[in-house]
Amino acid sequence: MKRIKLVVAYDGTNYCGWQIQPKDATIEGILNEKLSSLLDEQITVIGASRTDSGVHALGNVAVFDTDTKIAGERIARALNQRLPDDVVIQSSEEVPGDFHPRYQDTRKTYEYTIYNAAFDNPVTARHHHFVYVPLDFQRMSEASQYFLGEHDFLSFSTTGSPTKTTVRTIYECEVRQEGQYITMRVTGNGFLYNMVRMMAGTLISIGRGRREPEWIRELFGNPKRGKAGPNAPAKGLTLIKIRYMDQEKDGD
Amino acid sequence: MKRIKLVVAYDGTNYCGWQIQPKDATIEGILNEKLSSLLDEQITVIGASRTDSGVHALGNVAVFDTDTKIAGERIARALNQRLPDDVVIQSSEEVPGDFHPRYQDTRKTYEYTIYNAAFDNPVTARHHHFVYVPLDFQRMSEASQYFLGEHDFLSFSTTGSPTKTTVRTIYECEVRQEGQYITMRVTGNGFLYNMVRMMAGTLISIGRGRREPEWIRELFGNPKRGKAGPNAPAKGLTLIKIRYMDQEKDGD
Repeated sequence: MKRIKLVVAYDGTNYCGWQIQPKDATIEGILNEKLSSLLDEQITVIGASRTDSGVHALGNVAVFDTDTKIAGERIARALNQRLPDDVVIQSSEEVPGDFHPRYQDTRKTYEYTIYNAAFDNPVTARHHHFVYVPLDFQRMSEASQYFLGEHDFLSFSTTGSPTKTTVRTIYECEVRQEGQYITMRVTGNGFLYNMVRMMAGTLISIGRGRREPEWIRELFGNPKRGKAGPNAPAKGLTLIKIRYMDQEKDGD
Repeated sequence: MKRIKLVVAYDGTNYCGWQIQPKDATIEGILNEKLSSLLDEQITVIGASRTDSGVHALGNVAVFDTDTKIAGERIARALNQRLPDDVVIQSSEEVPGDFHPRYQDTRKTYEYTIYNAAFDNPVTARHHHFVYVPLDFQRMSEASQYFLGEHDFLSFSTTGSPTKTTVRTIYECEVRQEGQYITMRVTGNGFLYNMVRMMAGTLISIGRGRREPEWIRELFGNPKRGKAGPNAPAKGLTLIKIRYMDQEKDGD
C-alpha cells in the first residue's frame, strides 16, 4: 500500500465543485471514477481544498492510497489519458503514509481576476468576473495591504461555515493591473468558506468608490459574520497552488 | 439608410468560423439573425476578417446598412442583450456609406498564444495551444524579427487560397514570455489564408530546435506555397484589433 499525491488543475465551469455529489459532475467524483478504472481497485481521493461550483484550480492537491505497482510519478500521464480536457493532473508522486492534504501547515495561493471594461471579453469570460463600473486600481491596491498579517476574518465568511477559529494569516496580498484585467493574488495559511471571494468583492466595492480602503481595518476591529463583501462570483477565482511547509522542510 | 460599424469580440470555440453556413453556427449567421430581430428588418453584415473555425476575436469588424432610428452608438448594448455570452459587441457607430471593412488600408493585429509546460493548463485551454516539448524563447524571439518588413509570404499560406499578390508588410512582430505562456503578437497590412497560424507554427519549429531562425529568410528568398509551418491550431489565435488608417486620418 502506498499513498500518492496528485496536483490537480481544472476549469471548474462545468463542475459542481470539488466535493462528490450523488448526481452532478464533480472533480472528486471524476477522479475517483477514473483512478478506480485505471488502477483496477476502488480508489477514494482526499482533497486539500473543496473548491465551490465554478471555481478553477491550477494546483489543488489530492491524495489516495493504492496497491498499484505503477510508479507514483507515472500515474499523472496515465490518468490524463482518461480524464476529460478540463481536468489535467500536473504531477503525481509517492508521499509518506501519514501525509494528509488538509491537516498540515500550508500556504495556499489564490488569484481573483476581474475584467474591467465597458463590455465583456468573451475570450477569457470563463475565468474572469466582468465589472463594467470603472474601478480605481490605486484604491484597490492600497486597500489590499490591510489584509496582510493575522486577523479575525469572521466578516469575510458567509453564514454557517463551521470552523473552530476565524483567525487567519495573510502573507501576501497584491493587486496588479494588466490592460483591462485587475487581478488580486493572495497567499494565506488558510481561508474560511467564501473568504477569498468576499475579499475580492470588498476590493471591488472599494475600487468603485462605495467604500474607503480603511473599511477593511474596521471590519477586522469589529468582526461580524458576512459583513464584508459582496461575495464575488466563483468564475473569477482560481486556486493557484498549495505549499506544504513540512514537506518542504523534509526536502532540505 | 445609414451604415453601422460594429467591433465584435467572440470566443470562437463553439462556432464554425465567421462566414455563414447553411447548418452550423457562425458569427456572421448569429449577427444577421439577432440584428434582423432587433431592428425588425432583414440585416446582412459584411465582415472585415472571415476568421476560421475556432479562432477568437477581440476586435473583428462588421458593417451593415439599416433604416433604424436607433442611434448608432446605442446598438451595441441592445444587441448584446440578445447575443449569447460568447459573442460580445464592443462598440457600434455610424460610418460613411462608402466605408467597407475589407477594401481599405488597414493594420490588423493578431496574437497567437502557446502554453509551454509538461502538462496542459485547463483554465485557459480554450484560447491557447499546448506544447509540451520545451521551447527556446530566445530563439523564437530572434526568429520573429525576420518577419518584419515587406516579404512574399507564399510559403506561409496553405494551398488554394485565391489572392492577387502574396506580398504583405509586417509592421510589428514580437514574442513575449509570461510564466508558461509564450505569445506572438503580429501587426500587418493584411494576412494570407492561415498565414498567422503558419508563422506561429514556424516559430514553434524553431523554438523546439528543428529549424534555425534563418529558415524564415530562406523561405522568403525562395517562396513556395505551404513550405513553412506547420499550421498551428486555430484555438491559439485571437484577432486583437483592426485599425482603419483612412478613418483615423479623417478623425484628425
